[in-house]
Amino acid sequence: MSEATGAPERFGQKDSARLEAFSDGVFAFAITLLVLYLKDPVQSASSSVSLLQGLLNQWPSFFAYVTSFATILIMWVGHHEMFSYIVRINRRFMFLNGFLLFFVTLTPFTTSLVSDHILSGDSQTAAVFYSGTFLLLSIAWNILWHDAFHNKKLVGPDAKTQEESNRMQRNLLVGPTVYGLAFLVAFFSGLLSLVLTLAVAIFYAVGTRAPE
Amino acid sequence: MSEATGAPERFGQKDSARLEAFSDGVFAFAITLLVLYLKDPVQSASSSVSLLQGLLNQWPSFFAYVTSFATILIMWVGHHEMFSYIVRINRRFMFLNGFLLFFVTLTPFTTSLVSDHILSGDSQTAAVFYSGTFLLLSIAWNILWHDAFHNKKLVGPDAKTQEESNRMQRNLLVGPTVYGLAFLVAFFSGLLSLVLTLAVAIFYAVGTRAPE
Amino acid sequence: MSEATGAPERFGQKDSARLEAFSDGVFAFAITLLVLYLKDPVQSASSSVSLLQGLLNQWPSFFAYVTSFATILIMWVGHHEMFSYIVRINRRFMFLNGFLLFFVTLTPFTTSLVSDHILSGDSQTAAVFYSGTFLLLSIAWNILWHDAFHNKKLVGPDAKTQEESNRMQRNLLVGPTVYGLAFLVAFFSGLLSLVLTLAVAIFYAVGTRAPE
Amino acid sequence: MSEATGAPERFGQKDSARLEAFSDGVFAFAITLLVLYLKDPVQSASSSVSLLQGLLNQWPSFFAYVTSFATILIMWVGHHEMFSYIVRINRRFMFLNGFLLFFVTLTPFTTSLVSDHILSGDSQTAAVFYSGTFLLLSIAWNILWHDAFHNKKLVGPDAKTQEESNRMQRNLLVGPTVYGLAFLVAFFSGLLSLVLTLAVAIFYAVGTRAPE
Repeated sequence: MSEATGAPERFGQKDSARLEAFSDGVFAFAITLLVLYLKDPVQSASSSVSLLQGLLNQWPSFFAYVTSFATILIMWVGHHEMFSYIVRINRRFMFLNGFLLFFVTLTPFTTSLVSDHILSGDSQTAAVFYSGTFLLLSIAWNILWHDAFHNKKLVGPDAKTQEESNRMQRNLLVGPTVYGLAFLVAFFSGLLSLVLTLAVAIFYAVGTRAPE
Repeated sequence: MSEATGAPERFGQKDSARLEAFSDGVFAFAITLLVLYLKDPVQSASSSVSLLQGLLNQWPSFFAYVTSFATILIMWVGHHEMFSYIVRINRRFMFLNGFLLFFVTLTPFTTSLVSDHILSGDSQTAAVFYSGTFLLLSIAWNILWHDAFHNKKLVGPDAKTQEESNRMQRNLLVGPTVYGLAFLVAFFSGLLSLVLTLAVAIFYAVGTRAPE
Repeated sequence: MSEATGAPERFGQKDSARLEAFSDGVFAFAITLLVLYLKDPVQSASSSVSLLQGLLNQWPSFFAYVTSFATILIMWVGHHEMFSYIVRINRRFMFLNGFLLFFVTLTPFTTSLVSDHILSGDSQTAAVFYSGTFLLLSIAWNILWHDAFHNKKLVGPDAKTQEESNRMQRNLLVGPTVYGLAFLVAFFSGLLSLVLTLAVAIFYAVGTRAPE
Repeated sequence: MSEATGAPERFGQKDSARLEAFSDGVFAFAITLLVLYLKDPVQSASSSVSLLQGLLNQWPSFFAYVTSFATILIMWVGHHEMFSYIVRINRRFMFLNGFLLFFVTLTPFTTSLVSDHILSGDSQTAAVFYSGTFLLLSIAWNILWHDAFHNKKLVGPDAKTQEESNRMQRNLLVGPTVYGLAFLVAFFSGLLSLVLTLAVAIFYAVGTRAPE
């Protein structure tokens, strides 16, 4: 269980599995908590409105729900893909991973801001926080990948081919670039920023499919 | 860990395990989150009513709770059964699985709509959304099974006997058929639609028991 | 992975592990959700009261919180102990386990009823639902154990010594007996019923410790 | 699976894995539940305020969020580190671990108290409960470690070198000491107490990094 040779390095394959389990829990929980911000429109509305009309009126909530669900899902898939290379972890890597999860857990909150305000005068503010959180998340993501692959102790000997490496490098830069753009756009149009955020999820789901 | 032969195909048994863990998390959270929509009737009521009377008055909440709990449970059992055949996954399968989980996470919300409105004038609207979500879920389910069994890379060589295969095909069609019926019925009677939804769960729990 | 010999029996050790993972998720989630019913007394109170006084006033919430936490914890420990004997599961066992989890997920709701009403005129009603849920849970528990140990396909050959068997039989009856008593007492005194419920948890934590 | 030699001791490596899974679930849920206490300032405010101003006004919520997230994260990392030594568990250890998790699940509640009151006249009361919970948690932590390492049945033969042992002893005392200090300071200044609590998390994240 321990490949330690004098030094107190004790984290191996088993520990990598537990870090994945904890991360899976946070991803799964964050993605499921999103639903708590879908509200019954009749219960919360003061005016009398039919349930159907109320649900149609809150389409931004559903749009934000789909966007956040898709974003967390592709992040979980990417997290999964990263760990198919990692054979060992250390304390530093665990904290960097925690830093990433911090922004994942913020997602239900920022999603609720967008749901409630995307059609109001506060549309830009909500979108700035929403896209800004994802921008920081994608930066945390790049730091984590960089740390894993430049620390030869963490990846296996057959880590990746040159082709894979190039593909990943390319894919990794898409996140910060488009989220950065969405962040800038948010100062002018909240809705356009939201569309750009969804576009990132679609890109990773469709555009990066590996040949099989 | 990797059966790759040049191509960047890296998903094997270990990854299948992690997809199951993530899915288990979402199923377990969604099924437990249902409880948040059971409300203390005295706290929320404006008129003065005894706790007992209040709880009895909100029997639709308990009915919807039982229906959704049973439905998510049989889906988890079915998901479990599917993975007993699957030895390998790929990116496409992960996203199809995520599409399925999307409707699972919506369940607490649609359940709350039914709880709050099944006795009101919005009964039909609530039931349409409730059964409609399960209809889409069962369609996603059929797509996922179809993908798994028609992609020979995903299932083991001893995948299934002809008898098992026929039994499954038959069972898989029950979901979309009865949920489709519940969806149509919902436009006329919310309560009858809810009963049909519960019937699907009972069918899968009792009617499909394999000989042992 | 499959010990099938013609029959579609496919559930083995791996599946037992996944049933445990799903159950662990529900237990862990239900035990953590309890906290959502601890309310900030100043936010919810209409009158002006200091935070300290408000927290002291809602001691029943903390009492119910501790009782429910302890109860779910000992159930998880018992669930864990049961699975140390089980080497194989089947569909029937999965649904019985789901029936058990149904009452586990109800716990946060019944806890909130007790928290809000144990000092009011509805004290008995709240305690009847609280202890009644645990009574049903302990009955489900007995059915599950009975099913596992009388179906020789589910337990390993070295399942248990006669001594262990007797100890378990004895312990299993404590739950329904004392919860049944708490249920009856609840019709007269809600608080006493709550104390009896806590006593069950203490009994299982302390009174059943195995010799080591 | 069982190293029992007559006695009903049945907990081994597999059980340790399940205790970790359950604990991971509780840690992951508690850390993600924190987000539910971040409120949309415009929805809850009675006065009209811009979203941006409202978010800036509730900086204490974000400060408490970061502090609690960092604290639960370092505890999870520490829990993980502890289990890299543990090869076997028993019933007593499971309950001590449950005692530890009790305070972990309280964290979202005490965090919400600090969020809502750190700038009000109830600042001290909130901080007393917040730091007091962490003080008890760190004491439970010390009891758990002490139990694990003084019960030779629980740790492997190569448990730790003298150097590691000394480092751990030292680190273990930091928690109760600084949380105790934060608890005392809370009676005079809530904000200073909160800063001290955050300092503990930073110490464990940065100050205890093992040489690699």
